[in-house]
Amino acid sequence: MIIFGSTGSIGINALKLAALKNIKISALACGENIKLLNEQIQIFKPKFVAIKNAKDKHLVKHDKVFVGQMGLEEILQTCEDDFLLNAIVGFAGLKSTIKAKELGKKIALANKESLVVAGNFLKGAKIIPVDSEHSALKFLLEGKKNIKKLYITASGGAFRRSKIKDLKSVTPKDALKHPNWTMGTKITIDSATMVNKLFEIIEAYHLYDFKNIDALIEPKSIVHAMCEFKNGATTAYFSKADMKLAISEAIFSSHQTKILEAINFVKLSSLKFYPISTRKYPVFKLKEAFLKEPNLGVVINAANEVGVRNFLDYKSGFLDISHTIFRALDHFGVPKISSIEEVFEYDYKTREYLKGV
Amino acid sequence: MIIFGSTGSIGINALKLAALKNIKISALACGENIKLLNEQIQIFKPKFVAIKNAKDKHLVKHDKVFVGQMGLEEILQTCEDDFLLNAIVGFAGLKSTIKAKELGKKIALANKESLVVAGNFLKGAKIIPVDSEHSALKFLLEGKKNIKKLYITASGGAFRRSKIKDLKSVTPKDALKHPNWTMGTKITIDSATMVNKLFEIIEAYHLYDFKNIDALIEPKSIVHAMCEFKNGATTAYFSKADMKLAISEAIFSSHQTKILEAINFVKLSSLKFYPISTRKYPVFKLKEAFLKEPNLGVVINAANEVGVRNFLDYKSGFLDISHTIFRALDHFGVPKISSIEEVFEYDYKTREYLKGV
Repeated sequence: MIIFGSTGSIGINALKLAALKNIKISALACGENIKLLNEQIQIFKPKFVAIKNAKDKHLVKHDKVFVGQMGLEEILQTCEDDFLLNAIVGFAGLKSTIKAKELGKKIALANKESLVVAGNFLKGAKIIPVDSEHSALKFLLEGKKNIKKLYITASGGAFRRSKIKDLKSVTPKDALKHPNWTMGTKITIDSATMVNKLFEIIEAYHLYDFKNIDALIEPKSIVHAMCEFKNGATTAYFSKADMKLAISEAIFSSHQTKILEAINFVKLSSLKFYPISTRKYPVFKLKEAFLKEPNLGVVINAANEVGVRNFLDYKSGFLDISHTIFRALDHFGVPKISSIEEVFEYDYKTREYLKGV
Repeated sequence: MIIFGSTGSIGINALKLAALKNIKISALACGENIKLLNEQIQIFKPKFVAIKNAKDKHLVKHDKVFVGQMGLEEILQTCEDDFLLNAIVGFAGLKSTIKAKELGKKIALANKESLVVAGNFLKGAKIIPVDSEHSALKFLLEGKKNIKKLYITASGGAFRRSKIKDLKSVTPKDALKHPNWTMGTKITIDSATMVNKLFEIIEAYHLYDFKNIDALIEPKSIVHAMCEFKNGATTAYFSKADMKLAISEAIFSSHQTKILEAINFVKLSSLKFYPISTRKYPVFKLKEAFLKEPNLGVVINAANEVGVRNFLDYKSGFLDISHTIFRALDHFGVPKISSIEEVFEYDYKTREYLKGV
């Protein structure tokens, strides 16, 4: 297995699971956490390694160190391993997904932005979802017909219990306190704004070619997805809130291994579901428009990345993340995108536009 | 379709569904409700009809009326229709199941006693479960491997909220107030004693050849079964408490038709699961012994039928139902049964024994 993003939350868990099952690691790539990368190199002995910045190259204890996006693509090209776990965060992960698709590699895709911005141009790619919601949907949909509606669940994020009026003064530190999941910084903020769930709905559409999808808040994060059938039955997928299960579903060929303790239904305090308030989570208003026009993805994602970065850098407030997204959409409308190159163009244009406002 | 037990709750619902899908009804059989049978004859125009008692024959508006168990078997023999819905109540339904198996007919089996008393001798029968729990398990198990444990749910019956000390004075009228399901008399009492769930666990074993099965009380009766997998995931099957769904799953070849309103998860008040107290439901103590020795079924069932009859006839109390079962088991131990004939023998012997005590 090739792992891009090996020092992030997904990468670390994937390596734990790989060790458990003696899965060979051919290549590792990370951003700036060279210390952890060196530890991983020592344990897993990958043939190739890539890092983000040339300046760190001398720190890496490996003799085949590639650098930057070019480096990632060289690894994909050179390494015969046909299985990539792409756990790079954000738009930056797209090029690796495209390259892996071109090379016919299987892609365990934790980089949700790939599908969000370019799902229309990734048809035919051998994508296996790594998200818990999409992994759950895959399991529920296997062999089934007569689907009426799909649901994924949301925890509600760090501010589920906060008052709307208090959201204008919350800090990055507040937003990073996710109640249920231990995840990276970016996705934890996206969870607080509900951008994460909006993206997951679009991902589900691209993965399963089905548009009647909604999300509900389930504060315990033990129900991950539900599938409603035409006859009136609904199936639901339960597990503890731990990414290891979805990762193992994506990277193991056999599922006989115990990954998590099963839910003990008797010990469970009561289970409740809530609708997603678009007053509290204004980006969720975009769901229907987005499902209708998946090309909105590149603008929404670029604006969200800008908004999240500014918020984390204390340059703007929490509510400015959604303002930034709506401002970019007001400016660009529905982008006319007919090639993957234009995806990169619109990403660039959106970021440039937002510098000026 | 041939329907045995057409005037009971399952039969009535099956006919509603048959009408919806224009399924041809070849034969109808009932016990004593000749008035309703005549209405059904007028609407569905079956070729054959059977009733329980010869004395009622002149009341039936049909020229091919068979009588008694022999009559049922003649219908199965004569009628070319290869699909039987067996919704006869109690041990009395077994002979029809056996005959239909011999003739190679598909059997939509609502008569759970058939599997409970003679599951070991029904291997190879083309049985489709009609119970909501088994229908749910079937759906959850389809195409899946690596099952660790199965669960079915129980409503807790009419006395879920009653104190144990009050159970000795409850009346048949009290016991027939089922909180969630509209069902026949016998099964409603079996639900109050938890005999019904004990039986369903054994049925599940015979249907799915899997012994790690338990039941939990879910008071809303909207979760019908759960399937726990080795990796720690669990799937659950939800639907409103209405037998029509399980019946439609058994009798329709296509499942595109809306049978029930789907569960609205947002409107749902909280969902809770409870263990089954063997102090309150003493028969549930038998679960492990029963799974180990399925031949206990004939004794447990016969004793239960005797106990329920006596309770409904005000000849004994509610708690005497379980006393009767334990008394019969104490007397007979584990029956050595090696043929279907011996099942009938043990049923007879158990009833005879209980007359004398």
